Amino acid sequence: MASVKVAIVGASGETGQSIVEGLLSSSSPKFEITALTRPESIDKPVNANLKSRGITVVPVNLSGPPEQLVQALAGIDVVISAIYFGSLAEEIPLANAAKAAGVKRFVQSAFMIVVPPRGVVDFREKKEENLNHIQKIRLPYTYLDVGWWFQITLPRLPSGRIDYILPSTQPDLPIGLDGNVPSALADIRDVGRYVARVIADPRTLNKKVHVYNEIYTRNQVYDLLEKLSGEKLERRYMSERDADARIQEARSALKKEPTDPSALAALITSQLFFSWGIRGDNTPEYAEYLGYLNGKDLYPDFKFTKLEEYVKEVLEGKAKGVYQSFSK
Amino acid sequence: MASVKVAIVGASGETGQSIVEGLLSSSSPKFEITALTRPESIDKPVNANLKSRGITVVPVNLSGPPEQLVQALAGIDVVISAIYFGSLAEEIPLANAAKAAGVKRFVQSAFMIVVPPRGVVDFREKKEENLNHIQKIRLPYTYLDVGWWFQITLPRLPSGRIDYILPSTQPDLPIGLDGNVPSALADIRDVGRYVARVIADPRTLNKKVHVYNEIYTRNQVYDLLEKLSGEKLERRYMSERDADARIQEARSALKKEPTDPSALAALITSQLFFSWGIRGDNTPEYAEYLGYLNGKDLYPDFKFTKLEEYVKEVLEGKAKGVYQSFSK
Repeated sequence: MASVKVAIVGASGETGQSIVEGLLSSSSPKFEITALTRPESIDKPVNANLKSRGITVVPVNLSGPPEQLVQALAGIDVVISAIYFGSLAEEIPLANAAKAAGVKRFVQSAFMIVVPPRGVVDFREKKEENLNHIQKIRLPYTYLDVGWWFQITLPRLPSGRIDYILPSTQPDLPIGLDGNVPSALADIRDVGRYVARVIADPRTLNKKVHVYNEIYTRNQVYDLLEKLSGEKLERRYMSERDADARIQEARSALKKEPTDPSALAALITSQLFFSWGIRGDNTPEYAEYLGYLNGKDLYPDFKFTKLEEYVKEVLEGKAKGVYQSFSK
Repeated sequence: MASVKVAIVGASGETGQSIVEGLLSSSSPKFEITALTRPESIDKPVNANLKSRGITVVPVNLSGPPEQLVQALAGIDVVISAIYFGSLAEEIPLANAAKAAGVKRFVQSAFMIVVPPRGVVDFREKKEENLNHIQKIRLPYTYLDVGWWFQITLPRLPSGRIDYILPSTQPDLPIGLDGNVPSALADIRDVGRYVARVIADPRTLNKKVHVYNEIYTRNQVYDLLEKLSGEKLERRYMSERDADARIQEARSALKKEPTDPSALAALITSQLFFSWGIRGDNTPEYAEYLGYLNGKDLYPDFKFTKLEEYVKEVLEGKAKGVYQSFSK
């Protein structure tokens, strides 16, 4: 089997890193990876690291001359965008170039939990608009959403012993309703291996796909962490009304300071929490209703990390957090 | 099998009438039909006619108190909206009430040709927004698009002998590109029978479905009409550039006169033409790419009218036009 040529945008992000690992670990098919990077980032250590692993790093400006972008994608089979959500608009020229270059599959930067396409989480709507653009130009695509990462799922322990893996920017999340709302979870380290399966699978062409490891309610997450740590957790429950009020507050604050990243983060966090923690959107059932294929049906043999295994790893001090560059 | 209780909005429109006929003609299942009508329309002849055929006519204001709407939908299995495209906003309270009433399937007013969800035909975007609202509230749904009606497919004959079935408001359509762009067609009289099959079919729940009779290019339509009529047709071809310029002109005109119905109609007509006549969106292949189920796969036994049969009927003076209330 010839190797599959994949171009990645955003290879240095959390999702991008997992995708690179996942593709490199695949034995069949083999993937030949090109990382597209901003010209101003070409000398960053992350790109030297990618090169040392056999990845071709190509500097290209997504908002630059279309011909250069088309040229960069010549011969590429699959384009994966793991672009930062603040740069989603740049996916439009990327998709146009992919179409012009004859790319066989375009994976836009979805890679989030299952939420309604419109009306609940603002930035999800931008992803839907990009999908609609892809569909307008008839670019072969796969829209891939993934479970909420284990890595941002655990509450702090009173002892502070798992603080080392918690992103400093992560707010201490309350528990939605009575704590019995189910939510699909995934280990970020498994995401890339899911991607390797999905992009080589003809069944997922022009489809939405939902991959996740396990389903947990917040009560179950707290119970598990208490059991394995021997510590007792405080449980703060939040009503739908309060969760909604938090969104309205965040929206007002952002209106006053439209360029404040922390105001934007507060709105996003509160909207996402409302979706998975209150509405319970992040489930395989809702994904199926929305037309997603279920990764469990597609890849019943997939070896995934269990939350219990991850928690043990964390308690043993062996885990690695995400967004470490932002942490203390 | 117990009869299925269906409520229809827009039963007096062209699509609504076909749906009423289609449901009434079904032997299994039997449908028990309620037509929801505006209170001010309750005494119109069309409603007397519906009543005489065993249909329950219920006056209700879609924008009125939600409780009344929920009450009107109590016990209803399927809600079908064939609402006028200018009133699409009223589908939101209708969908909310359907959810509250426990309706098992909601068929929004799609019933148009296959076009991209966004970016080509303005009013298609409103339908997508309504679909996204339905999905947000998790109302079970079917999104049903149908072929371009035979009834608005034929060009005028020089002799004028088929003018009697052509809507006076229908512009004389040019032929897109070289006339070889395929487009899915349907007889409006068959649409209701398709609906009867689709709404009783568990496979179409929470799915988009595309039903049509036959695929024709414009050249094939012209060839057929010439052959059967013995008359010679003038063929006016239109380039992509000219078709696009027509849209821009229509958009400018509408901007100047935002409330002029003919300006709106001109924009819609030119955008729809661009989609089916130039881009070639209205095909089963594009529908499949967009995730639609194909009616030909679902109902291979469906007896449909062929375009050739329809043209003969027209030439024999036995056909009935659409939008007759607007015609000369």
